[in-house]
Amino acid sequence: MLISNVRPWGGDAQDIEIADGAITALHPHDPARATGADDVVPGRGRLALPSFSDVHCHLDSNRLGLPFRPHTGTPGVWGLTMNDRAHWREDGTVAERATHALGLMIARGTTRVRSYAQIDADSGLERFEGVLAAKEAHKDRCEVEIMAFPQAGLLREKGVPELMDQALASGAAVVGGIDPCTLDRDPVKHLDIVFGLAERHQAPVDIHLHEPGHLGVFSVDLILERVRALGMRGKVTLSHAYELGAVDEATTRRLTEEFAELDISMATIAPAQQLHALPLAGLTEAGVRVGLGEDGQRDYWSPYGNADMLDRTWQLAFTNRYRKDELIEHCMAVATWGGATVIDPSVARLASTADRPGLAVGDPADLLLLGGETVASAVMDRGDDRTVLRAGRVVADGLELVG
Amino acid sequence: MLISNVRPWGGDAQDIEIADGAITALHPHDPARATGADDVVPGRGRLALPSFSDVHCHLDSNRLGLPFRPHTGTPGVWGLTMNDRAHWREDGTVAERATHALGLMIARGTTRVRSYAQIDADSGLERFEGVLAAKEAHKDRCEVEIMAFPQAGLLREKGVPELMDQALASGAAVVGGIDPCTLDRDPVKHLDIVFGLAERHQAPVDIHLHEPGHLGVFSVDLILERVRALGMRGKVTLSHAYELGAVDEATTRRLTEEFAELDISMATIAPAQQLHALPLAGLTEAGVRVGLGEDGQRDYWSPYGNADMLDRTWQLAFTNRYRKDELIEHCMAVATWGGATVIDPSVARLASTADRPGLAVGDPADLLLLGGETVASAVMDRGDDRTVLRAGRVVADGLELVG
Ligand SMILES: [Zn+2]
Ligand SMILES: [Zn+2]
Repeated sequence: MLISNVRPWGGDAQDIEIADGAITALHPHDPARATGADDVVPGRGRLALPSFSDVHCHLDSNRLGLPFRPHTGTPGVWGLTMNDRAHWREDGTVAERATHALGLMIARGTTRVRSYAQIDADSGLERFEGVLAAKEAHKDRCEVEIMAFPQAGLLREKGVPELMDQALASGAAVVGGIDPCTLDRDPVKHLDIVFGLAERHQAPVDIHLHEPGHLGVFSVDLILERVRALGMRGKVTLSHAYELGAVDEATTRRLTEEFAELDISMATIAPAQQLHALPLAGLTEAGVRVGLGEDGQRDYWSPYGNADMLDRTWQLAFTNRYRKDELIEHCMAVATWGGATVIDPSVARLASTADRPGLAVGDPADLLLLGGETVASAVMDRGDDRTVLRAGRVVADGLELVG
Repeated sequence: MLISNVRPWGGDAQDIEIADGAITALHPHDPARATGADDVVPGRGRLALPSFSDVHCHLDSNRLGLPFRPHTGTPGVWGLTMNDRAHWREDGTVAERATHALGLMIARGTTRVRSYAQIDADSGLERFEGVLAAKEAHKDRCEVEIMAFPQAGLLREKGVPELMDQALASGAAVVGGIDPCTLDRDPVKHLDIVFGLAERHQAPVDIHLHEPGHLGVFSVDLILERVRALGMRGKVTLSHAYELGAVDEATTRRLTEEFAELDISMATIAPAQQLHALPLAGLTEAGVRVGLGEDGQRDYWSPYGNADMLDRTWQLAFTNRYRKDELIEHCMAVATWGGATVIDPSVARLASTADRPGLAVGDPADLLLLGGETVASAVMDRGDDRTVLRAGRVVADGLELVG
């Protein structure tokens, strides 16, 4: 198979040869090459990029495509969790909603996803099973890694660790944790359960951290101790963690160095007014893997989110107040290849903000062809002219699923 | 003329009668009413809103529709001003670019604009005349109020006050000022020139304020003194001013009260990470007029901005971290009617975040018909199904200018 006339990362026009789901050759574009080939995807001079990897989404909780519902939550994690609990059964099944949302995400260019599946006393494994059904429905179009996620804590309600254990035995690949101090109010017990499950299932860990300032640093230090003790280097992700820059500079420098040393990866969702996050560029320069995710998408938590990682890439640049092209392009690198390194640590990591991997011979042919002059302008324009390939097969075109 | 089947501010379906550029009647929707009428705009159940008012844009400096150009500026107002100065003559004329950008803005729903026209030693009146040409080209589609704006200061270079004076005698309607302390470094002289020009031309004043914390408060206090002394109540706007909330609470409360007392209006552009702005809802509740603007649009200052006030309305909600429907709708009220009150203080002001004026008998028939379920969902979706009316005449449909 041949993709004719595309510009990898905005460079010169090339033809990309693909076989067995991977890139097998890159040539300077020659119109004659397409004439001889059987199976040609017309690039039309568009950008070629690695497809998006969404490292933080909640497929089990969204209302995309359903009637808009005014927001009824009260602020704070617990208030929003309880608002979701009061309403999530109201429209259709989780399987239907997750399958629909994942289809929208793929159609817009995402082919690799780490999705949360909430596990709590109210929903049991119902949400997890819904996400599993969505994963199965789109298995040829997208890689979905499911995280068993104790949104309402591991200790506040009965039976949650056992449910987590069942989910991990039934297809969940990642152990989630959340705010060890502020939610369960017993960080050691919370983390012992999380890392105990990780050991038993040989699974990576991803911890949702909203805790402020030095409290967040304390939770992170407890996590780092366990990574060292259990030899879990390269197997832990911190999600959000947008308050770690709120402390003294010596502490933020130490954290960044320890993240690099223990190969802790980070998942950001590009929130508004994130003044205290560790700097994106600094994390990459230090060797820390960073990915981007959408978090909730028009759900009971918030009306934001539209299944479009290109929109979210713009948001990452905007919230970082990036103007320089190289930094805006770095946001695209984080949203695509950076996220791939979070989900699959064996993928070659981004080495600097100027690094743009993911389009060399041997790389997976998971690609986004995107109309635009340069990568930075395409992030600004967020256009609709997109073709999405997964494992060398076209899975979406013009924002619609194919085949 | 009749607009059939629209939902004003998301309410019940109505038919809107229009004559002489204003709304003359509102009736519950009846399909039979359209059958008898001569000139019918099909509403198709869309939302009806006042059209957008952009209270802060720079029509004289944009590259919309031109090849994308990597950002070359160095940070800070002076560095960015000099980067613009080095490049703004490179592509086409200001008149062409301003006319094109204004056309895009109208096509997306904006029919009232306060545009900056930069006046400095380098460009003389050339930029002002370009904006004047754009205003003339679209005079039946949009009301454009031009601000003579000393981007590079009034004192740093020779002859700027005289050029400002000429512009104000030739069609500029507003006197601009900028960072009285940090740019010209002589706030009294700067403000004496600004307010002197305002007195001579009986023109309102709009001051671009980026100054931090207490320095910004000092500049604002100098401005307030002049408003009192010169009897300019209701004639002064502060643009940006996003640092006034960075000081002690007693000072921010005093400022809000003085803004209400002296009827100072505010223009925000919904920047990223605006933690220290005076709260949007609080300003409205205090009786302060607030409008929204786009600032630069893909220019030599920044690659952001796309001529779409609906996108910017989303940005206002996002940067304020609003989730509640009433607050998201308030952003729409600010972007439409709020801005109208800034440009034309005789327009009835927004009284609270629940207030949604601009669609009553007697109001101007400057309207946006917008596909969407509710106002909040339409802000989230930022869709393309739009029809724009100016003075009761359709001027754009489906993002294209009409007639
Ligand atoms: Zn989340
Ligand atoms: Zn401006």
